[in-house]
Amino acid sequence: MTGARRKEQKRLEPNTQGVSLTLRVRYFETDQMQVAHHAHYFVWFEAARSEFCRVRGIDYAAMERAGYFLPIVEARCRYRTPARYDDEITIRAHVTERTRRTLKMGYIVLRGDAQIAEGETIQMLVDRDGKPRSFPPEIAARFDAS
Amino acid sequence: MTGARRKEQKRLEPNTQGVSLTLRVRYFETDQMQVAHHAHYFVWFEAARSEFCRVRGIDYAAMERAGYFLPIVEARCRYRTPARYDDEITIRAHVTERTRRTLKMGYIVLRGDAQIAEGETIQMLVDRDGKPRSFPPEIAARFDAS
Amino acid sequence: MTGARRKEQKRLEPNTQGVSLTLRVRYFETDQMQVAHHAHYFVWFEAARSEFCRVRGIDYAAMERAGYFLPIVEARCRYRTPARYDDEITIRAHVTERTRRTLKMGYIVLRGDAQIAEGETIQMLVDRDGKPRSFPPEIAARFDAS
Amino acid sequence: MTGARRKEQKRLEPNTQGVSLTLRVRYFETDQMQVAHHAHYFVWFEAARSEFCRVRGIDYAAMERAGYFLPIVEARCRYRTPARYDDEITIRAHVTERTRRTLKMGYIVLRGDAQIAEGETIQMLVDRDGKPRSFPPEIAARFDAS
Repeated sequence: MTGARRKEQKRLEPNTQGVSLTLRVRYFETDQMQVAHHAHYFVWFEAARSEFCRVRGIDYAAMERAGYFLPIVEARCRYRTPARYDDEITIRAHVTERTRRTLKMGYIVLRGDAQIAEGETIQMLVDRDGKPRSFPPEIAARFDAS
Repeated sequence: MTGARRKEQKRLEPNTQGVSLTLRVRYFETDQMQVAHHAHYFVWFEAARSEFCRVRGIDYAAMERAGYFLPIVEARCRYRTPARYDDEITIRAHVTERTRRTLKMGYIVLRGDAQIAEGETIQMLVDRDGKPRSFPPEIAARFDAS
Repeated sequence: MTGARRKEQKRLEPNTQGVSLTLRVRYFETDQMQVAHHAHYFVWFEAARSEFCRVRGIDYAAMERAGYFLPIVEARCRYRTPARYDDEITIRAHVTERTRRTLKMGYIVLRGDAQIAEGETIQMLVDRDGKPRSFPPEIAARFDAS
Repeated sequence: MTGARRKEQKRLEPNTQGVSLTLRVRYFETDQMQVAHHAHYFVWFEAARSEFCRVRGIDYAAMERAGYFLPIVEARCRYRTPARYDDEITIRAHVTERTRRTLKMGYIVLRGDAQIAEGETIQMLVDRDGKPRSFPPEIAARFDAS
């Protein structure tokens, strides 16, 4: 079992290129400190994750219709420099580890060449009832591709 | 048919007392103009609507499980004075009109005695497929009660 | 005075082309009805307004630094068909009326050729203390351009 | 210097009681997975932090007017069980470490007796220009009180 799991698990070489999404900080996303509110970075990570899936040919909406869900079980972010209204920022999302049932992704937030934040999420594949499931091989392969 | 609709329809006397919900403006809800962002007022209206349902004995979550949904088909708000971080505000929600299939509610936002905004939403009762439905009599009665 | 105001005021020909912004509905923007939550449409209107300003050469961030603010005094939206996660939608923003101190803009939300929602906002030009101000001519001209 | 810092620093005994805030999950806060979206937990942490300040006699709005700001430099959350629409949840906020310039707070999210999530934030005290500052003694004392 452990062996089976090991084979499934894939510690990826850090590939911070991953898939990039560029967006502008919305006025709605600022707070009275006149910077983007920290909670929105997790929304941007998610938007980059959606883009990652699209680029890799993973139809996440279809996955949910088929009964596979990827809820976040852990999330963190480190904020270095504030992002401001209308800033054009780029979020790079990449897979850092995939096990049979979990997906760890890393994110880098860039403004121009400056790295202004970085973060990580861990997701667990579950079915409609919240029970853990194993990644179908064809989905796993798309997450693991480099 | 028109007659049937008339009976069902209920133009309520303006009762701006309705059900009240008091909350504090969250830091997250401010923007760089250092006031609460206008989109959040619709979130507050919704929270007051939830409270309205609770007070009237309408279990909206159970309604959805039973296949009844009340999506917003129209919403508007007029902003008079800004709300600021940590302000304690009260939202009063009341039904202004109910027809067989629609629900019109009005909202008043108060800070102390000052009315700082007011708004309105129109919802339509639909089933899981988005098809219009008529209010079950027991639900209708609870919305109409004064 | 009324005459002066009249000259300033500009009832524009309806030009629903305006400036367009295309975006994807974020997972964060959905709610448990599995559609985009109605409050986010106002965020999209705002994003389209930012794009409108950019295209017209209006630097809104600089306007704020110079002490001009455009808070929303009224907003409304009519929702026709739900937008869903990952839908690519286009928001068209156009000026419908500008007076000395107010700006009325209209918005159309499209998915493909289908108009799924439309809305309107009214903004008032104010200074740092919230006192109404008149549009500087060079800013006015950029809003009025067609 | 190190000595001075040590004296200032205060490793508090874990006191997971801290200050509690009870709220209901808003419909707006759900997503199409029909649970509260993970980004909103950080908003709840912040609301509990505001309550913590109020209870301890710290006027955060006044701190900002006086030129002290507490931006988040790091945030994380671990999600155990989903929160759902209209759930009544309690967030307990407590200080876990305070140094001269940073504040680390821990959060526990409870539904009834069940701990459904926990998190942590690190904030840095800065001035209007974003330069690190030391906590004024009277503010420090209020954060450190148990």
